[in-house]
Amino acid sequence: MATKSEKGKKFIYLFGGAKSQGSADMKNLLGGKGANLAEMGKLGIPVPAGFTITTEMCAVYYKMNRNYPKALYGQIKEGIKHIEKTMGAVFGDNNNPLLVSVRSGARISMPGMMDTVLNLGLNDETVRGLAEQSGNERFAWDAYRRFVQMYGDVVLDLKPQTKTDIDPFEEIMDEVKKKKGIKLDVDLDVHDLKELVWKFKAAIKEKKGMDFPEDPWKQLWGAIEAVFGSWMGDRAIKYRTINKVPHDWGTAVNVQAMVFGNMGNDSGTGVAFTRNPSTGEHKFYGEYLINAQGEDVVAGIRTPQPVNVSTKTSAEQKTLEEVMPQAYKTLEAIYKKLEKHYRDMQDIEFTIQKGKLWMLQTRNGKRTAAAALKIACDMVDEKLIDYKTAVLRIGPEQVDQLLHPMFDPKAKKEVIAKGLPASPGAATGQAVFHADDAEAWQGEGKKVILVRIETSPEDIGGMNVAEGILTARGGMTSHAAVVARGMGKCCVAGCGALNINYKEKKFEVSGVTIKEGDWISINGSTGEVMNGKVPTIKPTLSGDFSKIMVWADKIRRLRVRTNADTPNDAKVAREFGAEGIGLCRTEHMFFEGDRIKAVREMILADDTAGRKKALAKLLPMQKGDFVGIFEAMKGLPVTIRLLDPPLHEFVPHEKPQQEEMAKEMGVSLEKIHHKINLLHEFNPMLGHRGCRLGIIYPEITEMQAQAIIEAACEFKKKGITVKPEIMIPLVGDVKELQDQVDIVRKVAADTMKKYGVKIDYMVGTMIEIPRAALTADKIAEVAEFFSCGTNDLTQMTLGLSRDDAGKFLPAYIEKGIYKNDPFQVLDAEGVGQLVEMAVNKGRKARKDIKVGICGEHGGDPESVEFCHKVGLNYVSCSPYRVPIARLAAAQAVIKEKTKKEYSTK
Amino acid sequence: MATKSEKGKKFIYLFGGAKSQGSADMKNLLGGKGANLAEMGKLGIPVPAGFTITTEMCAVYYKMNRNYPKALYGQIKEGIKHIEKTMGAVFGDNNNPLLVSVRSGARISMPGMMDTVLNLGLNDETVRGLAEQSGNERFAWDAYRRFVQMYGDVVLDLKPQTKTDIDPFEEIMDEVKKKKGIKLDVDLDVHDLKELVWKFKAAIKEKKGMDFPEDPWKQLWGAIEAVFGSWMGDRAIKYRTINKVPHDWGTAVNVQAMVFGNMGNDSGTGVAFTRNPSTGEHKFYGEYLINAQGEDVVAGIRTPQPVNVSTKTSAEQKTLEEVMPQAYKTLEAIYKKLEKHYRDMQDIEFTIQKGKLWMLQTRNGKRTAAAALKIACDMVDEKLIDYKTAVLRIGPEQVDQLLHPMFDPKAKKEVIAKGLPASPGAATGQAVFHADDAEAWQGEGKKVILVRIETSPEDIGGMNVAEGILTARGGMTSHAAVVARGMGKCCVAGCGALNINYKEKKFEVSGVTIKEGDWISINGSTGEVMNGKVPTIKPTLSGDFSKIMVWADKIRRLRVRTNADTPNDAKVAREFGAEGIGLCRTEHMFFEGDRIKAVREMILADDTAGRKKALAKLLPMQKGDFVGIFEAMKGLPVTIRLLDPPLHEFVPHEKPQQEEMAKEMGVSLEKIHHKINLLHEFNPMLGHRGCRLGIIYPEITEMQAQAIIEAACEFKKKGITVKPEIMIPLVGDVKELQDQVDIVRKVAADTMKKYGVKIDYMVGTMIEIPRAALTADKIAEVAEFFSCGTNDLTQMTLGLSRDDAGKFLPAYIEKGIYKNDPFQVLDAEGVGQLVEMAVNKGRKARKDIKVGICGEHGGDPESVEFCHKVGLNYVSCSPYRVPIARLAAAQAVIKEKTKKEYSTK
Repeated sequence: MATKSEKGKKFIYLFGGAKSQGSADMKNLLGGKGANLAEMGKLGIPVPAGFTITTEMCAVYYKMNRNYPKALYGQIKEGIKHIEKTMGAVFGDNNNPLLVSVRSGARISMPGMMDTVLNLGLNDETVRGLAEQSGNERFAWDAYRRFVQMYGDVVLDLKPQTKTDIDPFEEIMDEVKKKKGIKLDVDLDVHDLKELVWKFKAAIKEKKGMDFPEDPWKQLWGAIEAVFGSWMGDRAIKYRTINKVPHDWGTAVNVQAMVFGNMGNDSGTGVAFTRNPSTGEHKFYGEYLINAQGEDVVAGIRTPQPVNVSTKTSAEQKTLEEVMPQAYKTLEAIYKKLEKHYRDMQDIEFTIQKGKLWMLQTRNGKRTAAAALKIACDMVDEKLIDYKTAVLRIGPEQVDQLLHPMFDPKAKKEVIAKGLPASPGAATGQAVFHADDAEAWQGEGKKVILVRIETSPEDIGGMNVAEGILTARGGMTSHAAVVARGMGKCCVAGCGALNINYKEKKFEVSGVTIKEGDWISINGSTGEVMNGKVPTIKPTLSGDFSKIMVWADKIRRLRVRTNADTPNDAKVAREFGAEGIGLCRTEHMFFEGDRIKAVREMILADDTAGRKKALAKLLPMQKGDFVGIFEAMKGLPVTIRLLDPPLHEFVPHEKPQQEEMAKEMGVSLEKIHHKINLLHEFNPMLGHRGCRLGIIYPEITEMQAQAIIEAACEFKKKGITVKPEIMIPLVGDVKELQDQVDIVRKVAADTMKKYGVKIDYMVGTMIEIPRAALTADKIAEVAEFFSCGTNDLTQMTLGLSRDDAGKFLPAYIEKGIYKNDPFQVLDAEGVGQLVEMAVNKGRKARKDIKVGICGEHGGDPESVEFCHKVGLNYVSCSPYRVPIARLAAAQAVIKEKTKKEYSTK
Repeated sequence: MATKSEKGKKFIYLFGGAKSQGSADMKNLLGGKGANLAEMGKLGIPVPAGFTITTEMCAVYYKMNRNYPKALYGQIKEGIKHIEKTMGAVFGDNNNPLLVSVRSGARISMPGMMDTVLNLGLNDETVRGLAEQSGNERFAWDAYRRFVQMYGDVVLDLKPQTKTDIDPFEEIMDEVKKKKGIKLDVDLDVHDLKELVWKFKAAIKEKKGMDFPEDPWKQLWGAIEAVFGSWMGDRAIKYRTINKVPHDWGTAVNVQAMVFGNMGNDSGTGVAFTRNPSTGEHKFYGEYLINAQGEDVVAGIRTPQPVNVSTKTSAEQKTLEEVMPQAYKTLEAIYKKLEKHYRDMQDIEFTIQKGKLWMLQTRNGKRTAAAALKIACDMVDEKLIDYKTAVLRIGPEQVDQLLHPMFDPKAKKEVIAKGLPASPGAATGQAVFHADDAEAWQGEGKKVILVRIETSPEDIGGMNVAEGILTARGGMTSHAAVVARGMGKCCVAGCGALNINYKEKKFEVSGVTIKEGDWISINGSTGEVMNGKVPTIKPTLSGDFSKIMVWADKIRRLRVRTNADTPNDAKVAREFGAEGIGLCRTEHMFFEGDRIKAVREMILADDTAGRKKALAKLLPMQKGDFVGIFEAMKGLPVTIRLLDPPLHEFVPHEKPQQEEMAKEMGVSLEKIHHKINLLHEFNPMLGHRGCRLGIIYPEITEMQAQAIIEAACEFKKKGITVKPEIMIPLVGDVKELQDQVDIVRKVAADTMKKYGVKIDYMVGTMIEIPRAALTADKIAEVAEFFSCGTNDLTQMTLGLSRDDAGKFLPAYIEKGIYKNDPFQVLDAEGVGQLVEMAVNKGRKARKDIKVGICGEHGGDPESVEFCHKVGLNYVSCSPYRVPIARLAAAQAVIKEKTKKEYSTK
C-alpha cells in the first residue's frame, strides 16, 4: 500500500529537450547517470530525451513488497509523452516507433552489477517502421534480434542455469551460423536475423512458458521491474557489501530515447576524457568507431580510432576531427563546457546518429595518481579550482602508488596465487627460503624474494636485503607486514595457498613448483604472486606532488610523525615530511649483531646481578642507537618506547640454533631448554611483556633510560637540543606507570647530574590496553603524553589476535560483519570509543596532555580523519605513509569545514 | 604550619575515671583500641585512665612535615593531668610516680606492625619511688630495665642493623648473665638489673651519641613521635599495601596509665572470649597467669590457666574463679555487660593489680566459620541481634570452609611448597602424573592426587577420580582451577617451584623428591603442598547454616545461578540453592567417550558435507546431555553456551596420541599434522573461537541448536516446561550475533514444527569482549539476555592472559599495583566500568534485558556486591560457591541500606 505522502509525490524527473527537471546535485535521488543527464540537458547540451525514476521509488517498491504506487503509472505515461514530443517519434507506433533504453543508475557506479535493456519498443510491427525509417532493414532486424535476446535474458530470466551451461540464445545463434556456414554475427543477413527472432521467441515460450510481450508498454514495465529487481540480486548485494555501499540507497531507472551510432558512415559512437587520464596532460583524449554501437567498442573486433588529430599515433588513423569535422567541433565545444562546468576532468560517452551528436553520459573521470596530481595543480593554475579543492582531489591511497615501484602495466603476467597486499610496491627476484640465504645471495649481487611461512625478528637481515617478502601466514599487521612497510619494501603476506617446504627449499601453488633460485614477482599493492620476471617501473615524484603537499601542510591541524627504529628510517621519514618520531621501538635494536648475545645472556641470568652485567654490555650499543636517531631527527621530538616484546622472542626456537646458543653461552642445552620452557606463554600477546618486563626486571628500564638520557646529554653538551619522550608500554593501571616513571626519573636525574646538563625530556605511556583508556584520567595524572597503540588496542578491544585473524577475517568482511579489516581501518565505533575516552579523560586530568596514535592506523586515511575529529595532536605512521597521512589530515580539515560528502572518484 | 582550623581543634580524647570523651563509633578518629577504651570508660568499666591522640593528628603531623601544631602541647598536658587526677599519681614525681604506656591504635588492627612503649615515666629518681610504693625493688628495677631497653629500641632506634646482627641490648643481657652464670631473666637480681640499666644507657650514649632522656616529658614526646613515625615505617607500609589499608588513614596514639599484673600473687593478667571462638558455644572462655605481665603469656614459659571452672580440662588447673573469686566476679559482670552492649562476642584483655581488675582492651572476637554461624543464630534467639545483623556476621569466605573437607588442625604437617589456593578443601593421596594412571590407580581402590605441569581437557577423566589436583603452571582461573572448582574438588595450581619430570614420574621441590605412589597432601584453601599423609576431617552443615541461608534468601535481590556442565554438577548446585544454570559449557561434552572421535572427524573434514556427517553423529549425544541437565534442573532456566574453545583443543598435541588418532580415523599422520598446523594459533585466546566458529562453520551452530530444542521439545511433549536460554559466545559486534541468531531461530522453528510444540526459548550473548560492552546498546537490539563473561572480559580489558599472568601477578600484588588478583576479585574500576556500561546501554535499548555474570567472579563476595550495586539480575558461580554468593548477595542489600561500613572481624 502506498502511504499518503507517496500519493502526491514526484517519482520521475524529465530530461532532454526543453525540460530538465533534475540537476547534478541530485545524485542521491536520481543516481549518478540520471543527475548528470539532467544537468547536461540544463546546459543545453543535446541528450536523447528521457526521464529518471527516482531511487526513492526503488525504496517504495521494496516497501510495498515489489509493487508500485498508483501515481507512478500516470507519471511514466507523461514521461514517455515527453520523450515522444522531444524526439518526434511515438512509443509503439508502427510507422515512426520510439525506441528506448532502460538502464539502472545508482548513486555510485556499480559496473556490470545491474541490468540494462536496449531497443525497447520493438515488436513484429514496429520493426518494420524502424526498417523503413532508417532505410536499413538489416539494421532494424538486428536491433530487434538484440532486443529479444537481451529482454529474454534480463527480464524473462532465460539464462544459463549453471556456470558450465551454454547461454540458450548463444546456442541458437551458433546453430543458425553453423547451418549457414558463417562465423561472424555481421555475416548474418536479414533472413537469418528474422529466423533468430522467431527461434528466440520460441525458446522463451518453451522454456519460460510465456509469450514474448509484443506490447511496448508491457515491455517497459517488465524492464523497469527487472532493473529494480537487480538491485537486490545476489551479485549486486555482494558488490555493495564488499564496497560498503548501503543496501537502502536503491537504484534509479533511466528510460531514454535510443540513438544509433550504427546507421551508416555518418554515424558512430565513442568515449573520451577531457584530459589524459594516465598522465593528466591537458589534452582532449578519446576513441570512437564509425558506424557502430557501444557494444562494438567493447567487443574489440574493430580497432577504435583516436578522436582528434593531436592524439594520433600513426598516419593511417582516421580521427573524428577529420572524418566528421562538424560533429567533432560540436563535441569539442561540449567537452570544454562540461569541464568548465564540473570543474573536473570528465569521462564522456557520445553517439553520432546520421551526423547529429548526442551525449549519453558525463562523469568525473577516473585517473592515475600522477594524472590526479597534474590535473589538480593545472586546474588551480587555470583558476578552475582553489588549492583546497585540489587537495581534496587526490586520493590518499593514490599517493602510495607514487612512492613505490610498480609493474609495467603493459607487461604480461602469470598470477599463481594471491595473498594480502601487505606493503605496497612491486618486486621481482629469485626465490630464497631462508634469511641467511637471502643475505648470501644478495652478497653475490643477486636479487631475491624472501619466501617464508612467517617471518620473525631473526629474519630482519634477510628481509632487509630482499627485493620483497612473501609469507604464507600472518595478516596485514604481521611481523613481515609491519617490518616491510617500515622499510618501504614490497610484501605479500598471508598467502595461505603456498605449500612451503623449507627442507627442499621450494613451494607449490596452483600446480606450479617454485624452487630456490626460480624467478618470481610479487605485487604488494594487489597481493598478486606471479611466476617469472615481470618488469617494473619506478615512478618519480613530480613538482605537482610537492605542491599538493605544501598545500596540505598549510591546511592540516594534525601533526604527522613517523614510526622509525633506525637512523635510516628516520631520515627517509623526514624527507617525506615527518615532524618527529612517534614510535621508536627499541626491541629491534636488540637483535643486531652481537647484541642478541648480550640479550640472551641477560635472559639466562639467574639473578639481578647477572642481568645487570649483561645489560651493562648493551648500554653503550643502545646509547649509540639513540645517538644515531637523534642525529637523523635534528632536534625534532623522538618518542622512544621501552622494551615491549616478551623475552621468548629473543631466544631461538629450533634445535640447531639452541645448540649453537648453548655452545656460544657456554651453558648446557638443558638449561636453555628449561629457560625457554619457562618463557613459554599460551597467549604471549597478553603475557609478560611491555611495562611488565620493567616492573619485574627494573634493571632493564634503568639501562634503557640511562642510554636515552646519556645520548641526549651528549648532544646537549655539543649545543644541540634533543627532545626525548620516553614511553612506557602496555600500561593498564596508573600504578604500573608510576613504578616505571619513578625509575626513569631517578636514572635521568643521576645521569644529568653526571653530565652536568639538564635535558627537557618527558615520560608518557601507550594507551593500548582497554583499561588504560577506561582509566585515562588517573593515568594522565602521571603520564605527560599518551600515544594510542591502536594495533594492540584493536586486538584487545575486539578480542582478535592479528596473527590469527586471517582464518576468519576474510569471511567476516565478505559477510559484511566487519566493514573493513580493523587492523587497517580503525574501528571507530569500538576502538575509537576508547581512543576518544582516552583523549577526553586524559585532557580532563591534564589539560595540555599531548595525545597521538602510533598504530598502523596512523597511515590510513579514514583513520586519520577519525584522529582529526576526536582531537588528537598527531598521528605517527611508517615512513612511506607519511605523505598519505599529511594529505589525509588536510582533507579531514576541509571535509570538516565543508561538511559535504566528497569523493575522489 | 598549622592551619587556622587546626588551632582550635580537639586532638586528644580523655578516657577512664569520670570522663570518657570518645565512644565506640569513633573508630576512624580514635582507632579501634582508643574508641573501645573510651566506650568501656563510658560504661563505667574500670580502665586505667588515659587519652587518645587522634588519627587526624597523625595526618596533620605528616602534613606539617613531622611537626605538631602548638595546640597539641597544652592538650597533652591536660591529658596527663587527667590521668594523674584519676590514678592518684604524678607524672615524674619521685615519690608517687605515674607511669604510662604509649601505644599505637589504627582503625583496624595491624598486629606487630606498629610501635609500643611501656613503663614510660621511669628514671633514676622515679624508679626509687616505684620501688617504695610497690614495696618491691626488684619489680621496680626490672620495669626500669625493660623501659630503657624498649625505649632505646623503639624511640632511639638502637636496633640490629642487619638480619644477622645480634640485638645490642640482648648482647649486653647475655654478657651479664654469662658473667653471673645464670640463664633465665628471672634469675637476675636487683644488682644485676641496675648494672643492665647502666650498661644500656652507656650503649645508647656510645652508639647513638645521646644521653638517655631522664625527663619523663621528653620521654613522652619521643614515644609519641615514634608511634606516629612507625605509621610510615617500611613494615607498616608493606602491611597496608598487602591488606589494602589506605595510607592516609593514620594511626591514633593511646597514652594510658600503667597497671601491673606482676606485683605479686594478688596480681595477674589474662585474655578471654565471651563465647567459645572455635565452636561458638555460649560459654565464657579464657586464660590467665598469676603474677605476670602480658609479655609473659606470649613468652610461653609458664602455662596459662583457664579463667573459669566450667572450662577446666584437668583438676590441677587453678582457675581465676577459684584463686581470685572477687576479681572473677567483677570480670564476669563486665564481660556480660560488654557482650550485651556490643551485641557481639568480645575478645578482652585484663590485668589485676593487687586484687583490682582493670580492663585493657575489648574488641569483636575472631572466630571459626562454625562458631560464627552458631553465635549469630544464638544471638538472634537471645534477641541480641536481628536476622539481618546475623547475616552480616558471617564472612562469605567462611562459608567456604564449611563446604569442604579440611585438615585436622591438630595434625602435624611438613609443607614442601606453596601454590595458588585454586579450589578449596583438603586432599591426601598418592601422587600420580598422568590422567590415565589416576584412573587406573583409582580403579584399584587407591586414593590419588593428580600432579601435572598443567591440565588440559583430555585430563578430565583423571581429574574426576583424583582426590585433588596439583599443577605447576596456570593461575586461579586456569583449566585445572576452573574444572576443579566446578567439581568441588581440592586444587592447588601454579605451584611454580615444582620441578616435574613426566618421564620419570616424579617431582622435586625444596630438596624433596616425590615419586609416583608417594603420599602427599594439598590444601586448596591455603595453597600448601605437604609431604606425607595429613588426616582430614569433614565438616558437617549445621542447622545454623540453613537458618542463615534462609534469612539471606529473604533479603537478597540478586538471583544466584550456577555454572554446571553435567547433570551431577547441576544437582549439587540445586542442593546448594542454585536458581538455574547461568553457564552450561557445551565443549566439555565434546570430550566424553566416543564423542571426541566424532569431533575429530568433523575437524578433519574437508568440506561442509563432511562436517555435517560428523556432526550428525554428535547430535543424539549432545541432545542426551541437555536432556540430563534439563531433568536435573526441573524447569529452572538453563543458559547453554554454544561451542566456545578453538578447535585445536580437541586434537592431541603429542606424537603417540596423534599416531593413534591417525590409525583410528584411517588417515595419514601427515594429514593430521597438516590439520593441526593449520589450527595452530599464536594467541588462541584471541583466535578462532566462540561465535567465530559458528560463523565459519554454521553447521556446528545448527547441530547444537537442534540438540537443545529437540531436548526441550521432548520434555514439553511429556508436559514438562524447560527454559533454554541459548547463548552465543565471544560476540564483539551485533552483526556476529545476528548471523548466529538467524541460524538458531531457523533451526528452532523447523524443530518445533517437526515436534508440533512451541518452546519458550531465548537467544542472548556473552559480554566478554570489551567491544561488546562498548556497543551493548546495538547488541541488545538482537540479544534477549546478556551474561557478562568476566573471565575473558578481564583478560582482554587488562590485556592479561590468565594462564600466563602467574609470572608477574604475585609481584604486582606484593608491590600494590593490583589490590587483588583480578581473576578472583572483579576489577571494579576497569572491567567493572565495562560491566556497568553493558547494563546501562543494554537496558537503554531493551528495557527488560536480563543481565547476569558467569565469570569466576560470580562466586566472589566483593564482586557479588559490585554486581548488586550495578543492578545485575543474577550471578552464576560454581556449585560449591552458590551458598557464598547467596550470602554475599544478601549482605550487599543490607550494606546498601545501612550504608555503613561493617566488618566481620
